[in-house]
Amino acid sequence: MDIKETWIRYIHDLQDRICAGLEQEDGLATFQEDRWDRPEGGGGRTRVIAGGEVFEKGGVNTSVVFGQVTDPMRKQLGISGEHWFACGLSLVIHPVNPFVPTVHANYRMFELYNAEGDTVDRWWGGGTDLTPYYLFEEDAQLFHRTLKNACDAFDPALYPEYKITCDDYFINHHRNGERRGIGGIFFDHQRAEEPRNADFRMGLSRACGDAFLQGYLPIVRLRKNTNFTAVHKYWQEIRRGRYVEFNLLHDRGTLFGLRTNGRTESILMSLPPTVRFDYDHHPAPGSLEEDLLDVLLKPRTWA
Amino acid sequence: MDIKETWIRYIHDLQDRICAGLEQEDGLATFQEDRWDRPEGGGGRTRVIAGGEVFEKGGVNTSVVFGQVTDPMRKQLGISGEHWFACGLSLVIHPVNPFVPTVHANYRMFELYNAEGDTVDRWWGGGTDLTPYYLFEEDAQLFHRTLKNACDAFDPALYPEYKITCDDYFINHHRNGERRGIGGIFFDHQRAEEPRNADFRMGLSRACGDAFLQGYLPIVRLRKNTNFTAVHKYWQEIRRGRYVEFNLLHDRGTLFGLRTNGRTESILMSLPPTVRFDYDHHPAPGSLEEDLLDVLLKPRTWA
Repeated sequence: MDIKETWIRYIHDLQDRICAGLEQEDGLATFQEDRWDRPEGGGGRTRVIAGGEVFEKGGVNTSVVFGQVTDPMRKQLGISGEHWFACGLSLVIHPVNPFVPTVHANYRMFELYNAEGDTVDRWWGGGTDLTPYYLFEEDAQLFHRTLKNACDAFDPALYPEYKITCDDYFINHHRNGERRGIGGIFFDHQRAEEPRNADFRMGLSRACGDAFLQGYLPIVRLRKNTNFTAVHKYWQEIRRGRYVEFNLLHDRGTLFGLRTNGRTESILMSLPPTVRFDYDHHPAPGSLEEDLLDVLLKPRTWA
Repeated sequence: MDIKETWIRYIHDLQDRICAGLEQEDGLATFQEDRWDRPEGGGGRTRVIAGGEVFEKGGVNTSVVFGQVTDPMRKQLGISGEHWFACGLSLVIHPVNPFVPTVHANYRMFELYNAEGDTVDRWWGGGTDLTPYYLFEEDAQLFHRTLKNACDAFDPALYPEYKITCDDYFINHHRNGERRGIGGIFFDHQRAEEPRNADFRMGLSRACGDAFLQGYLPIVRLRKNTNFTAVHKYWQEIRRGRYVEFNLLHDRGTLFGLRTNGRTESILMSLPPTVRFDYDHHPAPGSLEEDLLDVLLKPRTWA
């Protein structure tokens, strides 16, 4: 089985496992699937959960898409070649309880072919990052440690690099450098070059994908029954507003998808279910809410 | 008194009159003012209303700003000159009642100077547009007729042109061309060229600015006491989500302001107070909600 086929199977299997794990944790809601075709080639499986006991809204989507390299792609992605192929999984989970963090993950492989159909380029990209509304240091440590362990099995130099790339990516630049959350890992354009061959690159991406449930579910379990009030929910909705701002103003994947005629509903499933935008909102000095802002402005070492 | 001074006084006077008119209509909440300075030159008066009987959130902002022409401005605005000046009013009002429409207006003058300080270019821009959640044809007609009357006093050719410019501007391109609302008027780069001299251009912008309360308050009065249920509020919040999408993905003013280090809170006061993002939301066939979508997809003639 070639690399492409192996990766596609992996991504669909990962989607099944993640959906099953989240459904079990929720106990009430289940994922509904929409299969869609892309007129230009390929399609996807969008799986959405809503109104759950634990998860208010979420999506775990996969797509296998391909087509001709267009001029906007040449310009925006700086790629050459005649045909492209991409397969990946993208998920965002917005929990009900403000003490359970929102999570995002995305793992994908991209290939380019020349006019004869030979593969001329191939890379992996991805990441997993956490967006808490209240900071629990032990949760941040567990989340980062899980990702670090997955990376360390391949090379201890990887996690520190991917952690910084993540901190530097999820920034609301129009809000004085405030991060979307407490990070995780993020990487892109990871090509197979000896000694990090295709087995290494695919293996690493799979290890990180496999670590998703392991790094997130224990936190959900620990926090999902925490009592919360309207005050906590209000703060969650204010912070969800920042999530919307990041995704619509800065996220390269969202903007590229919308500009290149991607499936709007699958792309925007990432937006939170209920959101508030207050004018000039500031948490009270010394509050738990302000503690969160501190860590969003100055990312810390967690693992 | 020169053109610049006359325009600045007009804008501040308009801000006072609009705030007074809206406060009177609300009867409970009042505008709170934040004055701010721009490090690079000038500043503004942000006036925000929240938690009112009629208005859930709104801002009526003015700014008088100036500075050196930078490379990003040359590139994005296609302007020359050494120094620039801008003064304008920008407002967005989000009512509580889903039967009262959201409204936006913006009127501004821009000047460019050479190194010697001579004015080398000057133009006006602006517009007023309505975003209902339920369509009342008589409201759309009244709103458009008021704007048409303001324009017709100067030249009957203007309203039809500005109406189309507005319909073509407020489009959520990622949603099959769905408009943000039922339009109004929109114009930009209106330079003084005989016979449409500076008196004509400023007079027209003032007439449109003055028409704001006249075109909006009667609708507010007519609808603010309409009974509504959670179903209507839900739909309002879904549509507010589209408002967020337009402002953060497509609105040139918002994106330019955020990219050029404008005051974030003043720019984003336009975002609605509470918002919902559902996956793949569709109103029931034949419903009032679907009637609204029809007119957003196919703009109509109202005056």
